[in-house]
Amino acid sequence: MKNGIKIVTIGGGSSYTPELMEGLIKRYPELPIREIWLVDIPEGEEKLNIVGALAKRMWSATPYDVRIYLTLDRREALKDADFVTTQFRVGLLDARIIDERIPLSHGMLGQETNGAGGIFKAFRTIPVMKAIIDDMRELCPEAWLINFANPSGMVTEAVIKHFGWKKCIGLCNVPEIAMMREPAVIAQERKDMHYRFAGLNHFHWHKVFDSNGMDITRELIAHINDKDGGTPANIYQAEFPLELLYSTNLLPCGYHRYYYMKKEMLQHSLAEFAKGETRAEQMKNVEKTLFELYKDENLASKPAELEKRGGAYYSDAACTCIHAIHNDKKIHMVVSTVNKGALPCLAPDSIVEVSSILSATGAEPLAWGEMRAHEKGWLQLMKAMEECIIEAAITGDYGMALEAFTMNPLVDNGAEAKAVLDELFVAHENHLPQFAAKIRELKKQGVVPKDPVAAELIAQRNGGKI
Amino acid sequence: MKNGIKIVTIGGGSSYTPELMEGLIKRYPELPIREIWLVDIPEGEEKLNIVGALAKRMWSATPYDVRIYLTLDRREALKDADFVTTQFRVGLLDARIIDERIPLSHGMLGQETNGAGGIFKAFRTIPVMKAIIDDMRELCPEAWLINFANPSGMVTEAVIKHFGWKKCIGLCNVPEIAMMREPAVIAQERKDMHYRFAGLNHFHWHKVFDSNGMDITRELIAHINDKDGGTPANIYQAEFPLELLYSTNLLPCGYHRYYYMKKEMLQHSLAEFAKGETRAEQMKNVEKTLFELYKDENLASKPAELEKRGGAYYSDAACTCIHAIHNDKKIHMVVSTVNKGALPCLAPDSIVEVSSILSATGAEPLAWGEMRAHEKGWLQLMKAMEECIIEAAITGDYGMALEAFTMNPLVDNGAEAKAVLDELFVAHENHLPQFAAKIRELKKQGVVPKDPVAAELIAQRNGGKI
Amino acid sequence: MKNGIKIVTIGGGSSYTPELMEGLIKRYPELPIREIWLVDIPEGEEKLNIVGALAKRMWSATPYDVRIYLTLDRREALKDADFVTTQFRVGLLDARIIDERIPLSHGMLGQETNGAGGIFKAFRTIPVMKAIIDDMRELCPEAWLINFANPSGMVTEAVIKHFGWKKCIGLCNVPEIAMMREPAVIAQERKDMHYRFAGLNHFHWHKVFDSNGMDITRELIAHINDKDGGTPANIYQAEFPLELLYSTNLLPCGYHRYYYMKKEMLQHSLAEFAKGETRAEQMKNVEKTLFELYKDENLASKPAELEKRGGAYYSDAACTCIHAIHNDKKIHMVVSTVNKGALPCLAPDSIVEVSSILSATGAEPLAWGEMRAHEKGWLQLMKAMEECIIEAAITGDYGMALEAFTMNPLVDNGAEAKAVLDELFVAHENHLPQFAAKIRELKKQGVVPKDPVAAELIAQRNGGKI
Amino acid sequence: MKNGIKIVTIGGGSSYTPELMEGLIKRYPELPIREIWLVDIPEGEEKLNIVGALAKRMWSATPYDVRIYLTLDRREALKDADFVTTQFRVGLLDARIIDERIPLSHGMLGQETNGAGGIFKAFRTIPVMKAIIDDMRELCPEAWLINFANPSGMVTEAVIKHFGWKKCIGLCNVPEIAMMREPAVIAQERKDMHYRFAGLNHFHWHKVFDSNGMDITRELIAHINDKDGGTPANIYQAEFPLELLYSTNLLPCGYHRYYYMKKEMLQHSLAEFAKGETRAEQMKNVEKTLFELYKDENLASKPAELEKRGGAYYSDAACTCIHAIHNDKKIHMVVSTVNKGALPCLAPDSIVEVSSILSATGAEPLAWGEMRAHEKGWLQLMKAMEECIIEAAITGDYGMALEAFTMNPLVDNGAEAKAVLDELFVAHENHLPQFAAKIRELKKQGVVPKDPVAAELIAQRNGGKI
Repeated sequence: MKNGIKIVTIGGGSSYTPELMEGLIKRYPELPIREIWLVDIPEGEEKLNIVGALAKRMWSATPYDVRIYLTLDRREALKDADFVTTQFRVGLLDARIIDERIPLSHGMLGQETNGAGGIFKAFRTIPVMKAIIDDMRELCPEAWLINFANPSGMVTEAVIKHFGWKKCIGLCNVPEIAMMREPAVIAQERKDMHYRFAGLNHFHWHKVFDSNGMDITRELIAHINDKDGGTPANIYQAEFPLELLYSTNLLPCGYHRYYYMKKEMLQHSLAEFAKGETRAEQMKNVEKTLFELYKDENLASKPAELEKRGGAYYSDAACTCIHAIHNDKKIHMVVSTVNKGALPCLAPDSIVEVSSILSATGAEPLAWGEMRAHEKGWLQLMKAMEECIIEAAITGDYGMALEAFTMNPLVDNGAEAKAVLDELFVAHENHLPQFAAKIRELKKQGVVPKDPVAAELIAQRNGGKI
Repeated sequence: MKNGIKIVTIGGGSSYTPELMEGLIKRYPELPIREIWLVDIPEGEEKLNIVGALAKRMWSATPYDVRIYLTLDRREALKDADFVTTQFRVGLLDARIIDERIPLSHGMLGQETNGAGGIFKAFRTIPVMKAIIDDMRELCPEAWLINFANPSGMVTEAVIKHFGWKKCIGLCNVPEIAMMREPAVIAQERKDMHYRFAGLNHFHWHKVFDSNGMDITRELIAHINDKDGGTPANIYQAEFPLELLYSTNLLPCGYHRYYYMKKEMLQHSLAEFAKGETRAEQMKNVEKTLFELYKDENLASKPAELEKRGGAYYSDAACTCIHAIHNDKKIHMVVSTVNKGALPCLAPDSIVEVSSILSATGAEPLAWGEMRAHEKGWLQLMKAMEECIIEAAITGDYGMALEAFTMNPLVDNGAEAKAVLDELFVAHENHLPQFAAKIRELKKQGVVPKDPVAAELIAQRNGGKI
Repeated sequence: MKNGIKIVTIGGGSSYTPELMEGLIKRYPELPIREIWLVDIPEGEEKLNIVGALAKRMWSATPYDVRIYLTLDRREALKDADFVTTQFRVGLLDARIIDERIPLSHGMLGQETNGAGGIFKAFRTIPVMKAIIDDMRELCPEAWLINFANPSGMVTEAVIKHFGWKKCIGLCNVPEIAMMREPAVIAQERKDMHYRFAGLNHFHWHKVFDSNGMDITRELIAHINDKDGGTPANIYQAEFPLELLYSTNLLPCGYHRYYYMKKEMLQHSLAEFAKGETRAEQMKNVEKTLFELYKDENLASKPAELEKRGGAYYSDAACTCIHAIHNDKKIHMVVSTVNKGALPCLAPDSIVEVSSILSATGAEPLAWGEMRAHEKGWLQLMKAMEECIIEAAITGDYGMALEAFTMNPLVDNGAEAKAVLDELFVAHENHLPQFAAKIRELKKQGVVPKDPVAAELIAQRNGGKI
Repeated sequence: MKNGIKIVTIGGGSSYTPELMEGLIKRYPELPIREIWLVDIPEGEEKLNIVGALAKRMWSATPYDVRIYLTLDRREALKDADFVTTQFRVGLLDARIIDERIPLSHGMLGQETNGAGGIFKAFRTIPVMKAIIDDMRELCPEAWLINFANPSGMVTEAVIKHFGWKKCIGLCNVPEIAMMREPAVIAQERKDMHYRFAGLNHFHWHKVFDSNGMDITRELIAHINDKDGGTPANIYQAEFPLELLYSTNLLPCGYHRYYYMKKEMLQHSLAEFAKGETRAEQMKNVEKTLFELYKDENLASKPAELEKRGGAYYSDAACTCIHAIHNDKKIHMVVSTVNKGALPCLAPDSIVEVSSILSATGAEPLAWGEMRAHEKGWLQLMKAMEECIIEAAITGDYGMALEAFTMNPLVDNGAEAKAVLDELFVAHENHLPQFAAKIRELKKQGVVPKDPVAAELIAQRNGGKI
């Protein structure tokens, strides 16, 4: 870190990169950045060039002397890095379309993080993360890894618990969005509120206190079905059953809609699917529009349109995090980190998403204490499922994948669930080397994705052959 | 116990009573019974008289001098009892029909033990069990309670953990049926096999070893979808996915079909529902037939037809249990008892259903050790749900009932699940005094069970008024 | 809290009260105090009047309008209190002399917090605290209790876990003293260091990081045997074995000397004992001197001599704590609070002394994670002993007291330990109503404290009779 | 196991071998033994020949055709073994003399199992056991290991948890002796009593029930200080404090005397030490006498004198265990085995000594449930100490050894404890290769065992040089 900080962003061609640049620029007075490396893969080169040019224009518009490098050579980029951020999506948005459409074609939720789709996202992402960690161990053994590649919690668990990289923090924008929006709902300011979160990534609850220490969670529950109540843009706002929430006296996260109102969420997803407008397909269009904007050589700032994506504020959270570590800020953030007992109902070495103090030593979780039975049961099921997913992702064990599928509350159990699983394996063949033998076997058995959109994406990828 | 054992059977008018009598007669040489009291409620008096007369004929046909008492006075019966068995069904089979049909009328599984129906069976049964324990504390403070009122695990947890009656053992026929039938499947004899069970009532797994200590679980998994492979008569035999079972290397119980093949089980139930042949409705007919048989004054033994019911062997298990306690037999049985660490993933004071040694001191569980992630996640979810159900049953907290419903894997989450919950509350009004205030409120809101069969049963009960 | 804060100090006649006044005066600009009530018992009235007069002079010397009340009527004082601090010592310093001398007269450590003496201090203090909580429940149900009556951890556990008063924080000066003194030892400033403490009151460890997040614990271990290395004044500085500390890579607290170098500490105590200069006897003299100083009507500030006592900075910690709660400061403090999983090797509802964030909601512990085997074993033993002590203190169960004694690492096990126990019971008869029956029995058996100094104190107390 | 069982006994030259032979002869009708290999090291050859000849004479006196092999070649012996028993003592009785005398020369308990001596016995034994397991993995991968090399619990933990050999059972004679002798004390027969043990090797408690299921523990406590009450011959019978035992309502094991009456036990040991009659020195004489007896060519049975040793019934327990496994006996035995949750206060993968069911699948522990605070605290301390000892034994980490020493309740903490530790390291140099570097350093610092008897034994061993 002599002469300033070196930041490396893997998946640098992402449409979210301008938000990351904006965040770093804003914090530059306290963050002496020397260079930023945007890394991508050959398939992402075009996007990398477009967004990289915008990034350069953004920094040129500032008085700061920061060099921006665009590269397809990850190892060159990682050399002596101080902070590495990971925001890549293996298989790009097409993989997400497949993740969502194949389950929906069988009448089941795809859901790209915790649903069937999320399981496959983990299967594709974790091996790549393993390769990144192997490189980091060699090239930048002191670097912090700030992960926001999804499913962020499981990827972070793989990194810390399985690959042994302790200096890793997993981010998510969901808690941040709740803390940004909720105060206004009850005509308060954020500075006067205490937020305490606990749970897993995309599966956490929070409670809120005012500056006199009074629990005002119930007051916020009353407004949870209001518009703009703190749900990320990507989640359909089915109405929460208030009696359930009052009974728990906890604010669920937006993703809990999939678990508390599975039926409504499924119906909404099926309706989008029927119109060819799954969330992934919508995003592909949004992304196209964004990149058109980014090409504008006069643009030297993050366009407002970016905030409409579900992933807004992820990058800003990454900047907050880098800032807190570098300057030993001792601030409250909600991150995925090692449990250490903060949630006694889960193992101390599990990764959880909890209120933490962020400082030079990284994230230290605030102990939450025993969960009530309802939340405990859910959490323990979800964590066990995550463990099966991660083990399957690392070992390529099909049986373990089937176990994870069976446990997933968003997947209907039975023969059709197995059919969905098998189609997804075949569909993502080129990104799942660890499962290669099983996929060959499935193909021999004649497994073929039935959804025509997915089928066509696969055919395109395979140069016309399916 | 001077001059012989006094046994009291609450729900003595049950069609299962002849099996219980047969079991006691068979064991009489080692079980010096003095008297047997069959207790029932006024609504059950007719059945009590029929089955009681049969019981008397059965004992008259033996050389043994045992007195049989039929009574509606529970307190008189309990005085100085040595063993109390509980096999009652609050609301009789009509309540079960309601439990099954209302959820199915909304396209959801009713399932009379762990499904929506099972939740209401717990709500109805636990308060009655509380009253029985209050009586026992006063009238027979040293008696053993052998419970097989369902949901047996939850009722046993309420009795031991909440009502503080330690001398209680919860029974179920599912493990017994597996151990009876599986050996033949692989051409073995039961005496040469080691069975080890662990889990919760209607949610346990087992593994099997041969007499050389070799694990032969996989061999049995291969035959699990065979006919007569050990599933109780009341469960539709949807095919288990073998790859899942091989991965876990555990034999699931028959009820796992509802969790591993929910979709198939639901479709089967919906088909039965459409024909007016839900399991409960079938059973009402079977019971009618049985009681016709029982009336035959020449009948002095258990008729073979009884074995067709799902609950066969429950009563025999009760006899084995009484025998083991009275004679300090130190035998292996699978019962619901206090965990004590046998399943480290659940609290030591939870009730679990595990392989135990039965002797004069009651049941001592064999420690199973850590469960794999998949089974652990399921168990922890199910136990947390059971805790919510039991708490709701005791306190009458509607919010807690809603939490339990939301967690139940057999209930679709969302507004329609709440509708099912509310209809069930209204439908079972007369058996749920603890929820009286909430039920009044629901009725004011216009909640009415929509299923016509259920509606008619309620109307009959209410003398024509719904 | 309308019109300002009401603070009540029970044990207001303590020699530490001037430090408390100084702390409150210093923070007055952010702490709008309306009135301070100093409460004591009739035996303490003289001291209360002396120190109360000094307190009044101290406030008179400020521009602040705060009323000081001196009273023997605890209930009048507690009415509508906002903060209650407890710093009383049941039986005054004479009781401590007995606590220390009786064990030493048998060649064993007395040690007024965790040793045999500490056990009796808990027995005397916990019932009084129970009475205070009963009053508070009635008179000031919203008040915060800031406890620094020793043994602070056990008293806090009794208050929170057994008496159900959740708004309680237990304080100790040991962590504060370490954080004050250690930075200078390695030529650093406190603001550039991260302190993380975990363990139990008078039995905790800490680790230290610099502002780059590097662990510098080992650097501090190297200096632990330096003079002024952070040990409170009341603890003899036997040399820590550095190889042990390097192996643990943790900084022990000063009290660990009793456990890591028991032999040296015992020899030192025996030498003091032989000279009639046990710590308690020394303190009695120091206190006498302090009260002489306090009588000086020209004195209107805390005299420097007070800092020589082992308990210095306790009161200042109390002020920091009140300040943090009232103004929602979100600062790091080391306090006794509910574990909540912060130390996974202890029960979530145990009281532990750990790094916490102090704010309007009270103390929230930072999760520490798994302890190494060595520290875990010690902590679990000590917490189990504390549980036995607290249970004995509440129930008056002699067997439980004997169990606690047997477990205490500072007490030699065997017949002589029981002799010490029995003498202490008899010696403290008038402060141990819960053990009255057993003490009568012991007296009948002829148990008499053999130490002449103790015997004389008892005789004085009993008006000449022993 | 074709054509009969092959049993290998490592440490076959032990004076206990005749008991083992007697036990196997007695059980031969159900145990078709083909051959028994007695293995020893060159230093033990003479004893091996003497005891081996006796063993041969014992079998010759039976009608059974079993071959006895005497060998110094462990690998030849292990080839295709079915059962391996380990009863060796690294360094023979001279090492035990050193273990006991060096601590006593500093006024501390040596105690050859859990005291300072036991720690060094673990340090010497565990590496040898590692080598045996390495051989077994190659030469008899299906064999059962029946360990009674002390400290049996720690050695078993090393074998199962660290070396990964699951088919291992650790034995001890202490529970067996209690169950043999106690019934007579209350004029009962063993068959009418239920014994339940739980804890660690040489640190367990038990409770007893009669055949009506009534807890009769208190009745037995009343007799615990009687002669012949069930304490092994090697333990001085200091009187247990009955009030403590009544409070716990558990029967302690004989070794608890060291923890509950440390002072008395120390005084007794110091008196023996002063006379040159430590237990080890006494045993050396007993052993000499036994071997003289064994030389008698007319002797063809186990001489009665052997039962006077503390280790009597160890070998018989091994025979019971082999018998139970081979014939799938499903009997109750108290053995060291994997916890699996039987003691929830310890980790599921720890080795504990508990009531278990022994059958073809090995030992399955009966779940005991939560321990009371007193026993829990002790157990957790002792297990943590064991973990430190085992880790030090495997890694040769001196700091970890120092941690274990500091935690050991039988060792006084402080500088003198470290002196004892260091002398023991130097004294056992030739059996502690894993600590070689540290021992060299200690010798350079001039550490020399001061006890003259120990010093001479070392000098003898080293050919005159110390």
